Amino acid sequence: MKGFFAGRTLADLGRDLRAGRTSAAALLERALESIDPDLNAFAAVDAEGAAAAARRADEELAAGADRGALHGVPVAVKDVIDVAGLPTGMGSAHFAGHVAAEDAACVRLLREAGAVIVGKTTTHEFAYGASGDVSATGPSRNPHDPARASGGSSGGSAVAVAAGMVPLALGTDTGGSVRIPAALCGIAGFKPAFGTFPVDGVFPLAPSFDHVGVLAATAADCRTAYRALTGSAEPPAPREVRMAWVDGMVPMDAQVEEAVRASFPDLPVERVDLRAARRVFAAIQDAEAYDVHADRVERAADLYQPPTLDRLRRAGRTPGWRYVRAVREREDFTRAVADLLGRYDVLVLPTVPLTAPLIGQRDSDLGPLQPALVSLTCPWNVAGVPALSIPAGFVRGLPVGAQLVGRAGAEHVLFAAAERCAASRG
Amino acid sequence: MKGFFAGRTLADLGRDLRAGRTSAAALLERALESIDPDLNAFAAVDAEGAAAAARRADEELAAGADRGALHGVPVAVKDVIDVAGLPTGMGSAHFAGHVAAEDAACVRLLREAGAVIVGKTTTHEFAYGASGDVSATGPSRNPHDPARASGGSSGGSAVAVAAGMVPLALGTDTGGSVRIPAALCGIAGFKPAFGTFPVDGVFPLAPSFDHVGVLAATAADCRTAYRALTGSAEPPAPREVRMAWVDGMVPMDAQVEEAVRASFPDLPVERVDLRAARRVFAAIQDAEAYDVHADRVERAADLYQPPTLDRLRRAGRTPGWRYVRAVREREDFTRAVADLLGRYDVLVLPTVPLTAPLIGQRDSDLGPLQPALVSLTCPWNVAGVPALSIPAGFVRGLPVGAQLVGRAGAEHVLFAAAERCAASRG
Repeated sequence: MKGFFAGRTLADLGRDLRAGRTSAAALLERALESIDPDLNAFAAVDAEGAAAAARRADEELAAGADRGALHGVPVAVKDVIDVAGLPTGMGSAHFAGHVAAEDAACVRLLREAGAVIVGKTTTHEFAYGASGDVSATGPSRNPHDPARASGGSSGGSAVAVAAGMVPLALGTDTGGSVRIPAALCGIAGFKPAFGTFPVDGVFPLAPSFDHVGVLAATAADCRTAYRALTGSAEPPAPREVRMAWVDGMVPMDAQVEEAVRASFPDLPVERVDLRAARRVFAAIQDAEAYDVHADRVERAADLYQPPTLDRLRRAGRTPGWRYVRAVREREDFTRAVADLLGRYDVLVLPTVPLTAPLIGQRDSDLGPLQPALVSLTCPWNVAGVPALSIPAGFVRGLPVGAQLVGRAGAEHVLFAAAERCAASRG
Repeated sequence: MKGFFAGRTLADLGRDLRAGRTSAAALLERALESIDPDLNAFAAVDAEGAAAAARRADEELAAGADRGALHGVPVAVKDVIDVAGLPTGMGSAHFAGHVAAEDAACVRLLREAGAVIVGKTTTHEFAYGASGDVSATGPSRNPHDPARASGGSSGGSAVAVAAGMVPLALGTDTGGSVRIPAALCGIAGFKPAFGTFPVDGVFPLAPSFDHVGVLAATAADCRTAYRALTGSAEPPAPREVRMAWVDGMVPMDAQVEEAVRASFPDLPVERVDLRAARRVFAAIQDAEAYDVHADRVERAADLYQPPTLDRLRRAGRTPGWRYVRAVREREDFTRAVADLLGRYDVLVLPTVPLTAPLIGQRDSDLGPLQPALVSLTCPWNVAGVPALSIPAGFVRGLPVGAQLVGRAGAEHVLFAAAERCAASRG
């Protein structure tokens, strides 16, 4: 079953709304009807609150108060982001029954843009995992094969968009948690530059790397949402985009690499040691994540899903000096990336080096699953630069993502490159 | 034996120099004669280089080129600070025979101010200890009782000044390493605000807290050196100085506390939990120190003095999440100090809660010696604010220091408070 929003862009919806061919209330109904409980994309649905918001959106539009591209659009929000009056469950028994008192700052941006919040999407427990199948509320399931993981941690958001339940969702991305499920589910996901979206009201994973990002069917819709939420004008499209292929020196499924590379033929190749960036990422993320959870591990370890608890205990043993050294090495890597992004506008590589794993799978042909999943995405959290995953075909019937990385302040170049590629693919 | 410079201020020396009653060359000779090898203040003396510098200083003065208060003044430099062409031994067998290629940035400031560098002063190994008696070149000895430690880690610098070998010395202060030996040797020591003096060319201990500071007989001489090296003009003396006594909730020798308090009677008392600041300090210092030393511990552990190696190994086990939490708690403490320094101009407390321990002593009536020694000084490294230790009498025949803490940018208030106190003591 494909939901209503499959194949409908934000631009389509906006035109229909403004032409009176549909209404926010009708779009909300289509969203609610499209929710397929078997895919477990939603941890909570707010039919009532959403109906009120849709009504307001319709009244405003009728009165000529147009809030822009997201006005009246149904949106889903990852369940580590507070929405006032709704549960924030974090995918964890620790937060069972917890209801948020206030909207997160990024949710306020959504509301100011006129979006209609449909509900909260399933997350890997505390966003601490890239497979999306470890959660107190169960795994989110890949629409392309429900036996397979969505990827994570923003798995529910990716599934909700990929299955056409909503045209847009918010996620969080600390090491790839927006881009990875976007790639594995065959949609687009955008993590802007570090700090672009405020993280107040978002449960922290590793504050040095935590980003809020958007998931939508296409790069164009990610761009539309990004512009609407940041309120920034779109600069003119660049005439020329200098692109390079990044050889990250990381193990990859050869067919995945080939599929992505076929979408970007004839690029110059730059070797960048992404393994070093992943080590930096792991040391910093683990120390910061354990700081967030130390008291909870002490007090009520049993409430964690066992894989999360294992991971946290290992994270707690990261030595302080490794953290200090990683902070230093992060600066080196960030400088190297800045240098590369001085010579090229956009760097291209696969988003994930493999296709969607089976639910419960912990290993892969490339080694332990978790580090393999983030190996190509986390370096851009380390560097804090904008990174976008777009659909790049299929391997063995499963979606594959291409990742485009650019400079902060040159997001329009990144989006232009992505849209040209999509256009050339037809 | 008291050296030539005992009882002579920088102002005295400057007047004599400019009146032609002495010369830089003569002052250097007095310094070299005053060096008492039994006190082990110097790790290296540069008679030849110093003679050349003194000659130049005399020629310049004769030609009317006056570099100011430090022109022609013999100065000693702690042996973790690079002086081009001289050994930087770090008090460690690891750096035996190591000769610095370039001047540290703070040494360049000394030279630009016309100072004559006499030699390098004994340091606690790698500046990683506050007793000053753990060093490949042996302990520096307290001039008030050579069986006792000078305090550290800038022990040799304090001894050189206290015994009248030089009127001024540079030290480094990560948790009190300028102020502690100053207090225990009966002189003044000033750690300016974090970042005031550059640390390039200074061997790091814990970069978050590393400061360069000055040691001299009196607060007035510290002020003179501070002004000369920063090139900053002296603002007019404040009319009123609001002072408070800090009750740091830390164990103290009652007689030490009484002696310091007697110098500052009738101050309002503010309770500040300095124990929490010490825990923050320890977590950050230990993780950063081990980062600096990890490869050396791996490669050649045997070259460390055993107490240093023990300490490093313990430091290496500081968990990363404790470091992360300490960085966060540091912000809280820094804010609390800023609040207090909004209500008062100067905070007063003892510099060290006890008097000079015996050489080799590792324990004290207040618990393990090392944490006791830094308990009252390290909080001001955590907060990064200027702190000055001044002589405050004697207990059981050993010197005691009063510590004055102020706001960055209001150093003149700190010095004014110290000089008024000294004047009132006569």
